[in-house]
Amino acid sequence: MENLKSYIQENKDRFLEELFGLIRIPSISSLSEHKADMVKTAEYWKELMLKAGADRAEIMPTAGNPVVYGEKIIDKSLPTVLIYAHYDVMPVDPLDLWESPPFEPEIRNGKIYARGADDDKGQSFMHAKAFEYMVKTGNLPCNVKFMIEGEEEVGSPNLGKWCAENKELVKADIILVSDTGMIAPDIPSITTGLRGLSYWQVEVTGPNRDLHSGLFGGGVANPINVLSKMIANLTDANGVIQIPGFYQDVLDVSMEERTLLGKAPFDLEEYKKAIDVKEVAGEKGYTTMERTGIRPSLDVCGIWGGYTGEGAKTVLPSKAYAKISTRLVPNQDNEKISLQFKEYFESVAPDSVKVEVTPLHGGQGYVCPIDLPAYKAAEKAYEKVYNKKPVPVRSGGSIPIISTFEEVLGIKSVLMGFGLESDAIHSPNENFPLEQYFNGIETIPYFYQYFAEMMKK
Amino acid sequence: MENLKSYIQENKDRFLEELFGLIRIPSISSLSEHKADMVKTAEYWKELMLKAGADRAEIMPTAGNPVVYGEKIIDKSLPTVLIYAHYDVMPVDPLDLWESPPFEPEIRNGKIYARGADDDKGQSFMHAKAFEYMVKTGNLPCNVKFMIEGEEEVGSPNLGKWCAENKELVKADIILVSDTGMIAPDIPSITTGLRGLSYWQVEVTGPNRDLHSGLFGGGVANPINVLSKMIANLTDANGVIQIPGFYQDVLDVSMEERTLLGKAPFDLEEYKKAIDVKEVAGEKGYTTMERTGIRPSLDVCGIWGGYTGEGAKTVLPSKAYAKISTRLVPNQDNEKISLQFKEYFESVAPDSVKVEVTPLHGGQGYVCPIDLPAYKAAEKAYEKVYNKKPVPVRSGGSIPIISTFEEVLGIKSVLMGFGLESDAIHSPNENFPLEQYFNGIETIPYFYQYFAEMMKK
Repeated sequence: MENLKSYIQENKDRFLEELFGLIRIPSISSLSEHKADMVKTAEYWKELMLKAGADRAEIMPTAGNPVVYGEKIIDKSLPTVLIYAHYDVMPVDPLDLWESPPFEPEIRNGKIYARGADDDKGQSFMHAKAFEYMVKTGNLPCNVKFMIEGEEEVGSPNLGKWCAENKELVKADIILVSDTGMIAPDIPSITTGLRGLSYWQVEVTGPNRDLHSGLFGGGVANPINVLSKMIANLTDANGVIQIPGFYQDVLDVSMEERTLLGKAPFDLEEYKKAIDVKEVAGEKGYTTMERTGIRPSLDVCGIWGGYTGEGAKTVLPSKAYAKISTRLVPNQDNEKISLQFKEYFESVAPDSVKVEVTPLHGGQGYVCPIDLPAYKAAEKAYEKVYNKKPVPVRSGGSIPIISTFEEVLGIKSVLMGFGLESDAIHSPNENFPLEQYFNGIETIPYFYQYFAEMMKK
Repeated sequence: MENLKSYIQENKDRFLEELFGLIRIPSISSLSEHKADMVKTAEYWKELMLKAGADRAEIMPTAGNPVVYGEKIIDKSLPTVLIYAHYDVMPVDPLDLWESPPFEPEIRNGKIYARGADDDKGQSFMHAKAFEYMVKTGNLPCNVKFMIEGEEEVGSPNLGKWCAENKELVKADIILVSDTGMIAPDIPSITTGLRGLSYWQVEVTGPNRDLHSGLFGGGVANPINVLSKMIANLTDANGVIQIPGFYQDVLDVSMEERTLLGKAPFDLEEYKKAIDVKEVAGEKGYTTMERTGIRPSLDVCGIWGGYTGEGAKTVLPSKAYAKISTRLVPNQDNEKISLQFKEYFESVAPDSVKVEVTPLHGGQGYVCPIDLPAYKAAEKAYEKVYNKKPVPVRSGGSIPIISTFEEVLGIKSVLMGFGLESDAIHSPNENFPLEQYFNGIETIPYFYQYFAEMMKK
């Protein structure tokens, strides 16, 4: 593949122009007024696949936004790589914080600024272009399938069912995903673990209406005071979650593996400075990276109740609400945890209030073993381009669909991410460095090459 | 005063029409668009006083809405009664819950329905009409002064200063106020105690921006979790407030007085049913009436932070807020408590967050001794009309200006209220029973008579 670098160099402008065309369609999946844009984006992807050399590409309906499926089967005896990506993006508000319009991509300081520049239009596009290179130059060593969905940012509500219905169609040896990040441009890394998630809304009802806090205060349970106590009791002073049975299925990570994970570069002072906190906090006995990588956590994502306007209104409110989430580690089952929490939280409510817990969302965790051939292939591919062996990292985040793939299709995923922390995904001024974009296009064909070699053995 | 009943009977319709005229002016003090209505209402009161027989009535400016002052001095050697009331009312939203327009008084089921029907237009108007009766029929045994303010519903920000500047003008032997309620139409009662108040807003800041709860959750303090713990720790399992020194100045009420207070009729089952709670809650060792009457309390009036919209957004928020208030009992100083809380709450914040406490509001408690001549006179007056000796009750509510009168003017107040729990003051469909309105007009002249007799001794 000695012509890889020059192919990229020669087609640089076109690779950008074609990406910009994809970005310019405002495919915000959570806003129904963009329904037509979702279809337009799917069509753009279909054309892209065919032009790059796919034998077949089609837009396949789901109950929500369609899935774009494409493939090039060169030899059934060769290994098959299934690319998963998403063509939908997050909303753009607050719009006034953007320095350039979110759907008019602009290059500044060597970065592409736009909604979707990284997540996931920029990262998914690298796969289209790497595929094009391999087809056009006769360097394709595997069969390739594409599965591009339009609902990742709203929790992939329909892709699991679609996979179950199209199990034969998407059959593959490995799923390749670029929707994560790496530590720094000079420290390549591969995400080997994702946390699972359970998310609830809780509603605490005290009196049947807002009461005068003077006339009733002290004599009637205040739902905000009660909710605060209930939330407080969910964790102890050491940051240990108190839901009975919560840690039951947590596989303790060996000291050996913890030592290895501890080798990933991490500067606590820089970390604290970046988010402007004097001290970090978390479960006793674990480092910050362990707390967010290999341990479960519990966060209140939102809370509200009573009077929240200006000034002093004296009220003993009728209701208080919170959105509570836990991040789970592999082997913890989100549905089991979801039920455990609901039962526990409702059971510890004092008689003076009514408590109702509604599960809102959930997903399993995921682990990619570092001795998997596909992981080894990815490792070698990064090393070829970045001249450094990538570090395996456990991410605290969740991509629930990845564990669904394992469950439904029985296929492992390798998360070859090229994003950076500074890319501001989901935020104003999302960006993607040109260097990462072109390095990604260069890295991917090596993955195919090494993966094909390893699978031959 | 054998003609009292017949005077009321003959003038019934006019008494209602004149009150309705007052009610029709939408004098909402918290909304600046009603500025002109405040002046109109003050003018209406001035005319009312003069027509009823005052020697003098004038509208006196303050930094906010004016005070209407009026007087009739019949003999400097006679005792002087100062009437305090307010001509402003609360806002009316939610408007769609009103069964008739709030500023178009309507009589249904023997009640006047309108904003201000009770609080305080209906109740204050009884004093104007009782005064008219005494003047017109030669039954006035005391000098009378009126001090009607227009900012009670926004915390009387200017009346303290106005009193200090007009100390000589408003000099009196007793302040008479009808701005409270009684237990039931057949159980007259007089409020002898009011709680004080301290109110703060607290702001807890964790990271400098909202973080991804997956990537950071478990490693960085979540301000909502921290705030919940801090609120939880403000009271112990027995409902005892944990702010150091908080109870220092609380005068314990003797068992004897508690026994007396316990004689006020109170049905716990009815109370729980009315607000639809299975159990009441509060400080251990005290009854519900004691918890709200003679003991301080702590309520979170509002809380907010993070994501409060629909569905599941995974965020580790930057900030969390709460509005926290305490009701204080007589002898607790609200300014001392305000400082104590601020120092304590900020000092117990963990290093992982920043906490800022802003005092928003405060007021002293008040006690009216039941051996005060004016109290005895009020007691006899109620007994005359209601054929029952009124019960002394300690209210959990606060009327901060009442303690200000004591501090600034050195004059005690007697709270002759005729409102009922069902009057829905501050709420949609505020109302005032016609029976209470006319009974009030009948009761007040007896107060003057008995008070004059007692002061002669």
